[in-house]
Amino acid sequence: MRSDALTMTLLYDYYGELLTEKQRGLFDLYYNQDYSLSEIASAAGISRQGVHDTLARAEELLEGYERSLGCIARDRLLQKALDTITQNAQALASVPEAAPQAGAILRTVREIKE
Amino acid sequence: MRSDALTMTLLYDYYGELLTEKQRGLFDLYYNQDYSLSEIASAAGISRQGVHDTLARAEELLEGYERSLGCIARDRLLQKALDTITQNAQALASVPEAAPQAGAILRTVREIKE
Repeated sequence: MRSDALTMTLLYDYYGELLTEKQRGLFDLYYNQDYSLSEIASAAGISRQGVHDTLARAEELLEGYERSLGCIARDRLLQKALDTITQNAQALASVPEAAPQAGAILRTVREIKE
Repeated sequence: MRSDALTMTLLYDYYGELLTEKQRGLFDLYYNQDYSLSEIASAAGISRQGVHDTLARAEELLEGYERSLGCIARDRLLQKALDTITQNAQALASVPEAAPQAGAILRTVREIKE
């Protein structure tokens, strides 16, 4: 576990709200705060195996949400498209007749990305 | 029920994959195919109350997913922003020095919307 921590924290950012409070708590300690299974087990007063199983279930759920909803995949495509729009709008920022609209486009892209 | 069928079918489009097969089946018959509770009950071999409860639970789940994930709200903001970008790019389509980039921006917006 934790080999793919980056993927897990990304999934958590998107779908963490759909986990139970307990799953979220253990997930946060393990993946964001980097505690070991044993440390979490001691702190939470449950067995190491219990922590492991709860995390495994949470990971399975998060992966299932992305398979069903695909928000991360869709957002990646959106970011790529926004980069294309940005590049084209930046190229227009130095054309006097196009600068106001190019500026409006760049501002709108920034708003989307926020 | 079915008073807010438009909202429900929108929620279903976004989050229907997260429902169980049974919930999806009854939801589809009721909201998309417009069968009555009694008709669905006969066809499915369950009580009218059973159909009602399954639908009520599915609606509750779908609304909860939107509260937690907010995909519909975010997509609405995105569509508005893309409209702003489109309007500005269209205004540039007739400026010779800006037309190629404006065309690329319009194409990219169309790709996102697909």
